[in-house]
Amino acid sequence: MKCNSTSLEEKITSFRQFGKTAKNGVSRLSLSEEDLQARAYFKKRCEELQMKVTIDDLGNMYALKIGKNPDLQPIVIGSHLDSVLNGGAYDGVLGVIAGLQVVETLRDENIELEHSLLIVNFTNEEGARFDPAMMCSGILAGKFSEDKMLRVQDEKGITFEQALNNGGMRGEKENRLQKGACYFELHIEQGPVLDKEQIEIGVVEGVVGMVCYEINIFGQANHAGTTPMIYRQDALLEAAHLMIDLEDQMLFLPEDLVFTFGRIYNAPNIHTVVPGHVRFTLEARHEDEAVLQEVRKIIQQTVEKPYKCNRSYEELWSRETVRFDPELIQFIEDAARKTNKTYKKMYSGAGHDAQFISHLIPSVMIFVPSLDGVSHNEEEYTSLQQCVQGVDVLLNSVYQFDCEKNTIKF
Amino acid sequence: MKCNSTSLEEKITSFRQFGKTAKNGVSRLSLSEEDLQARAYFKKRCEELQMKVTIDDLGNMYALKIGKNPDLQPIVIGSHLDSVLNGGAYDGVLGVIAGLQVVETLRDENIELEHSLLIVNFTNEEGARFDPAMMCSGILAGKFSEDKMLRVQDEKGITFEQALNNGGMRGEKENRLQKGACYFELHIEQGPVLDKEQIEIGVVEGVVGMVCYEINIFGQANHAGTTPMIYRQDALLEAAHLMIDLEDQMLFLPEDLVFTFGRIYNAPNIHTVVPGHVRFTLEARHEDEAVLQEVRKIIQQTVEKPYKCNRSYEELWSRETVRFDPELIQFIEDAARKTNKTYKKMYSGAGHDAQFISHLIPSVMIFVPSLDGVSHNEEEYTSLQQCVQGVDVLLNSVYQFDCEKNTIKF
Repeated sequence: MKCNSTSLEEKITSFRQFGKTAKNGVSRLSLSEEDLQARAYFKKRCEELQMKVTIDDLGNMYALKIGKNPDLQPIVIGSHLDSVLNGGAYDGVLGVIAGLQVVETLRDENIELEHSLLIVNFTNEEGARFDPAMMCSGILAGKFSEDKMLRVQDEKGITFEQALNNGGMRGEKENRLQKGACYFELHIEQGPVLDKEQIEIGVVEGVVGMVCYEINIFGQANHAGTTPMIYRQDALLEAAHLMIDLEDQMLFLPEDLVFTFGRIYNAPNIHTVVPGHVRFTLEARHEDEAVLQEVRKIIQQTVEKPYKCNRSYEELWSRETVRFDPELIQFIEDAARKTNKTYKKMYSGAGHDAQFISHLIPSVMIFVPSLDGVSHNEEEYTSLQQCVQGVDVLLNSVYQFDCEKNTIKF
Repeated sequence: MKCNSTSLEEKITSFRQFGKTAKNGVSRLSLSEEDLQARAYFKKRCEELQMKVTIDDLGNMYALKIGKNPDLQPIVIGSHLDSVLNGGAYDGVLGVIAGLQVVETLRDENIELEHSLLIVNFTNEEGARFDPAMMCSGILAGKFSEDKMLRVQDEKGITFEQALNNGGMRGEKENRLQKGACYFELHIEQGPVLDKEQIEIGVVEGVVGMVCYEINIFGQANHAGTTPMIYRQDALLEAAHLMIDLEDQMLFLPEDLVFTFGRIYNAPNIHTVVPGHVRFTLEARHEDEAVLQEVRKIIQQTVEKPYKCNRSYEELWSRETVRFDPELIQFIEDAARKTNKTYKKMYSGAGHDAQFISHLIPSVMIFVPSLDGVSHNEEEYTSLQQCVQGVDVLLNSVYQFDCEKNTIKF
């Protein structure tokens, strides 16, 4: 069974009109005018496929195609229609379009599944308008406090709750996703691995765990002209040494560990003054908790080494690795093999709704390549052929799941 | 001949009232209400000593005590009454007070000099209200364009010219300092050397030259979770390596070279994004131009090394070492020895009015210790005894100069 490429292209082209930017990207902040247009269009397209659309109290949209066996939990396919400011036309929306494409293809092939099919558009996945990211899948999974999230404000002081009401997107709590037979999410990789290695499909085994630390270095701000080197406590120079020291040790850990000094604050940050205080972040991600424990140990031991300045570290947060459902991973792998795709088992370094939904429903993800790994950027690009390949794998996984797993389990 | 400690203390206490801060520091921005009060008080004190006070078109104030030989150029003693925001009670003002103290001591000792004595208060030395620093000594020396400087605005958009007029400080151009027999400036060190080494007097041989570079590192901003280490062009990590590489090489240069990475800009500066662009400054100071040439060579060769990111450097500015008058340096050294002070010949790492005035008049400076090297800060501190020691050396230098150099040279 194959996805119709022209039909998929039409959907990608249609959806990218909502919030289209001058450079062919998309600005579709959650519950913005552009997002509301995309949501209305999604509803229309679903209804054209005889699907019933409901909305829960968080604005999550559900489109249901009834299956032959009403006693089975639905197969859920989802992702998100919102984007970051000046983002791309694939991140999120591809996974929603893929759901439509699956329903349409099955219709065209005159195939009726045993399971119902449920397409979900999760609200505010990006967290670009209302922090944090993956807000509404997180609430569904009990990871975020609903009350707290409803009070989160955007830049203009509009709360998430107001935005839901203003957009007519505050539906019924009883509509919330609670159960399902399985959850599939097709997404662009947002990293360079598949593109660089010329691999068509990423079979996603989970989402890597991470730790994020903030390190403070307190030196002494002094006149850059009058303070001899031996009398200095230069916080920035010491930060540079510390970063290299940390890097040297982390390079001995498995090579798929990623670590980043992303943010740095230097004070007073004047060219004629020896820096007196530096603060920087170090975040690291790996699927093996033991490796992250090694990172923690390296940070603690290295920052605690006596040096010229006073140094301290603080763990800002961490999250554990989410492992997707092994049986579903096998379905994806089989579908990739059956449809003659090159594929690679991999972990996602980025967060996705699937990581929260996996706490409710057995879940899995499929990745397709991102050109040069670019994402959250107007230049984000995945070719039509690559999108088709991803939908093909999704389609065949869904079909095979429906064939094999159609007896009710209690 | 010795300075009266009680009398000096009274002057320090009196002048620190103008712009006194809660933490016993001073905020006396140039031509501010507080500065104008200090200027009026300075005028009053000078007139009490039978000195005639004039003002030039830049607000520089001159107080003249006529000597016995009207054909001799005056001995000039000067510094500045302005301070930075939340600065200390010694930087600048001590050199002006020292002039008053010299005149007063000579009067009390019934000594009449052959030379006239001219005390100068230079306008806007700090450059804290009107950039650049040492503005008006710089104009006198022809280093800054007068027209350009008059148009410089403070934070509120008031031009330097307006501030002069508003404060009644726009005097006559013909009053400008043009000639003198010699120029002495007593100043706090604003560095830690004398304090750490427990030395009473710095015999200042000049002001070190400096170079200031800005280095750019252009990498690739990427998702910190999805971009494997091998595919990264991390601008901040490369900056850290580059700083250490530069440091390693500069540490082979003479140990009195000072170098500072003072300012750093990191983009996008988000903890979950691999830094795409870093810009940082490197400034270095040394009295030997050959050493600064070595620094330039190190920067050029090191930044040009091929690495992962694109790198570039730009010399923002440089200034040459100013060497003070050897004969005046000898006068200071002799006076320190004669008055039994411990002293050290040294270069100033900071800029002072004397470095510009040295282009008009043979010049020299005397340093007294700064506790912990702290300056431009309310905690700036030099003990009364240390101030007295500085004035003693100044007094004896002036007296000896007057004795030895009182024949007219043509």
